[in-house]
Amino acid sequence: MDELRRAGRAAADLAADHLAGIMDNPVWRPVRGADHDWLTRQDLPAAGRPLDDLVHDVRTRILPYPMGNGHPRFFGWVNSPPSPAGVVVSSLAAALNPSCAGGDHAGALLEHSVVRWLAELVGYPHRPGGGLLTSGASMATIIAVASARQRAARRDGWDVREDGLSGHPPMVMYVSAEAHGCLRKAAELLGLGSRHLRVVRVDDTFRLDVNALRTAIAEDLAMGLRPFCVAASAGTVNTGAIDSLDEIADIAAEHGLWFHVDGAYGAPAVLARQTAPAFAGWERADSVVLDPHKWLGVPVDCGCVLLRDPAFARDAFSLVPAYLRDDEAGDLGWFAEYGPEQTRQFRSLRAWATMAHLGREGIVRLVEHTMSLARRLAVLIEDSDDFELLAPVTTSITAFRYRPRPELGPDPLDALNRAIPAAVRRRGRAFLTGTRLAGAEAMRACFLNPATTEQDLAVLLAEIRAAAAELSG
Amino acid sequence: MDELRRAGRAAADLAADHLAGIMDNPVWRPVRGADHDWLTRQDLPAAGRPLDDLVHDVRTRILPYPMGNGHPRFFGWVNSPPSPAGVVVSSLAAALNPSCAGGDHAGALLEHSVVRWLAELVGYPHRPGGGLLTSGASMATIIAVASARQRAARRDGWDVREDGLSGHPPMVMYVSAEAHGCLRKAAELLGLGSRHLRVVRVDDTFRLDVNALRTAIAEDLAMGLRPFCVAASAGTVNTGAIDSLDEIADIAAEHGLWFHVDGAYGAPAVLARQTAPAFAGWERADSVVLDPHKWLGVPVDCGCVLLRDPAFARDAFSLVPAYLRDDEAGDLGWFAEYGPEQTRQFRSLRAWATMAHLGREGIVRLVEHTMSLARRLAVLIEDSDDFELLAPVTTSITAFRYRPRPELGPDPLDALNRAIPAAVRRRGRAFLTGTRLAGAEAMRACFLNPATTEQDLAVLLAEIRAAAAELSG
Ligand SMILES: Cc1ncc(COP(=O)(O)O)c(C=O)c1O
Ligand SMILES: Cc1ncc(COP(=O)(O)O)c(C=O)c1O
Repeated sequence: MDELRRAGRAAADLAADHLAGIMDNPVWRPVRGADHDWLTRQDLPAAGRPLDDLVHDVRTRILPYPMGNGHPRFFGWVNSPPSPAGVVVSSLAAALNPSCAGGDHAGALLEHSVVRWLAELVGYPHRPGGGLLTSGASMATIIAVASARQRAARRDGWDVREDGLSGHPPMVMYVSAEAHGCLRKAAELLGLGSRHLRVVRVDDTFRLDVNALRTAIAEDLAMGLRPFCVAASAGTVNTGAIDSLDEIADIAAEHGLWFHVDGAYGAPAVLARQTAPAFAGWERADSVVLDPHKWLGVPVDCGCVLLRDPAFARDAFSLVPAYLRDDEAGDLGWFAEYGPEQTRQFRSLRAWATMAHLGREGIVRLVEHTMSLARRLAVLIEDSDDFELLAPVTTSITAFRYRPRPELGPDPLDALNRAIPAAVRRRGRAFLTGTRLAGAEAMRACFLNPATTEQDLAVLLAEIRAAAAELSG
Repeated sequence: MDELRRAGRAAADLAADHLAGIMDNPVWRPVRGADHDWLTRQDLPAAGRPLDDLVHDVRTRILPYPMGNGHPRFFGWVNSPPSPAGVVVSSLAAALNPSCAGGDHAGALLEHSVVRWLAELVGYPHRPGGGLLTSGASMATIIAVASARQRAARRDGWDVREDGLSGHPPMVMYVSAEAHGCLRKAAELLGLGSRHLRVVRVDDTFRLDVNALRTAIAEDLAMGLRPFCVAASAGTVNTGAIDSLDEIADIAAEHGLWFHVDGAYGAPAVLARQTAPAFAGWERADSVVLDPHKWLGVPVDCGCVLLRDPAFARDAFSLVPAYLRDDEAGDLGWFAEYGPEQTRQFRSLRAWATMAHLGREGIVRLVEHTMSLARRLAVLIEDSDDFELLAPVTTSITAFRYRPRPELGPDPLDALNRAIPAAVRRRGRAFLTGTRLAGAEAMRACFLNPATTEQDLAVLLAEIRAAAAELSG
């Protein structure tokens, strides 16, 4: 046990050193040579190794090679730095090591508070049992779509768990062209078929075109298909756009569709004055997905699905064989009855600590600060000669491209913009990722880090210019 | 940052104290009163709270209410104590906080070593990319069955991701009556329908009856259905039975079925001399599931699926939208292409540390020690007047019931055995769970803890007798 105490403290110090030293190191560096071999090719030792040695390995072989998302100049995808509170309690979650499948112990019980906190934070109606934590939005989305599928089949008088989809008419789900890929993956996994996923076009602000949605539903009904679900986005991954939730809710209500909202990234924007109105109608959703491991900074992994009526999720997933019976489970039963996971990690501890450490006010400040950075970057871009803004800034994502003078043709411009993000990353001073928008190559900067400053924006643009010069030179 | 360092050390000490003090506390105690309210009903504070306060809350409100699985006299379900090495590195994984979706950083790369270690450890053929870590066996099973479904459809000339199941003949999967519920949940989630899950009877040692399997396949073929997968168990949750893998592999080969083996709990038993022969044929599986968070003691969560040919999983899951393109990803691509999770936790760090700390020899010792305890308990039971062994002990699970003199009728005997586990738990000195076996109520003790001793077995039996006396008195 002395070994454990010593190594535990060394690890705690190392974690603190790592977080304190992030600014002094490159945002990211490639893994090469002996360290690459060590990471990918080492052998399991025959004899056990002391804990101190393992902590030493983490110091020398692992922490030097981050993904980059701890750094204030990481602007890639949607990955936040870890909250200090989440880091501190991680070893405690592991030391207690419950399975939060359910039962009468702190690990399972705390999840009830955390799920309610998340619902209350984002203004989604909550009733007990109305949600659960997941490994991320992808799993949360699977739970939401499975619940929607279950409800639709029940309404048509059958049980999709029992019968399977084989003998039944195709069920159709609607998403926008800017919806996250996890919705398509869910439709495929559930056996619905991507052929029956209607990808509805977006308008020029990258929001789902509601007229196109109406037309698509009418066409499918005319063909005898079974529309069952529409998924809106509240914060798309490419531009942060928020669909017209209230209008989509109307359409869903009219046609008896399950109304799902993907707020994996964007849900916290409901806390900012300027974006709150865009969330009108979101309280009408049948399910909402949000990722505490994104904007809130809970260390990975922590996703969440919130459910208006959890009975559909329970109907879709509950299976309690004899060895899992719990004669003392209350009305809500076990969390494992509401999703595919049986053993469930103590995710709520990291989420609880992160949210309690920030407090509601701290969360609002974080959201407003990062949103203001995205707006500020947009201003810098519009004021420049060689950058072009590609989408309105709604939340904390700025989508743009580099457009140097003299003008390049569309193909060389695309090629340059496609190459820039990797070239920027190689330089080690900033990290951003690319995408395609309206058929053109684009870059996007996503702001999630409370430590990012306005100076970092200037560095980002300078790094892009320098990378472009390298690529052109 | 000083706050972080101080709180991190306090948390490390608290984790060490918790682990050192487990024996001095009840295995489990119910959560009641103010602590129950605190866990389930607290409000999100408006202002942020200091880290020290949060660590204090964990000490006073959370750690006192374990699920029980850290204690040497926890014999319930299949939940292990956390490995010390896994606890120590947990805060480091959170501090680095990568998403192991893929890419060129330590978090994604280390997973290659860990998956290979697991394959080599359990003697399953490994090729690069042939597996990934998951949140548990339930998710790993979903990946395996989705891969099987994909291959079967491809062989029949269609793409199940694209088409969905709606217009196609039912696909049939075979499991035994003792198979884990996650297989049924997977079949339901994937839209196959539990109606098309053949639950094949077991023999009197609780192993899948291979003749009944042959008959079931023949019947389904005669009815024009599409058999596509058979799932064997290598260590059932109720009794630890290992199916006749070689024979089942033959049947799978004969009919072109995907051969899956659920070794979630039992896979490490292949390392023990007496059980190794029972695993013959397991190297022929198309997919194997094992849970490092079970017998190996990796803190939750850490499951794993191993794949003979990872191309089917990639075909079933890969989706790379523009914003996730990685022009520098090698041949294997990203882990996220092989399963439903996009953001993926740094699970490999805990698994790496746990396995390296034990070493291969330590893992073998752990497996042999816990298996010998299960055998020893069986001997105590057989030598007693008032206990009855209900299944042969194959791995580290002992299934039995209490059968006091004078003999009770079958119904009172069932009622008593059903009530005993909860009564034992309430007494706080041991934790075990019940199940049903061959139509009767049973208890089962599962051994996973290296600290459990022979004396603990005597305590367990004494506690059961005392609980039974309480219930009868
Ligand atoms: C809008 C949106 N939805 C869903 C996801 C998937 O979330 P996860 O990676 O947690 O599965 C993301 C990830 O970036 C996202 O931005
Ligand atoms: C044989 C078997 N398979 C699958 C599972 C499910 O594993 P998990 O809880 O990691 O999803 C279990 C859990 O006890 C098991 O014992």
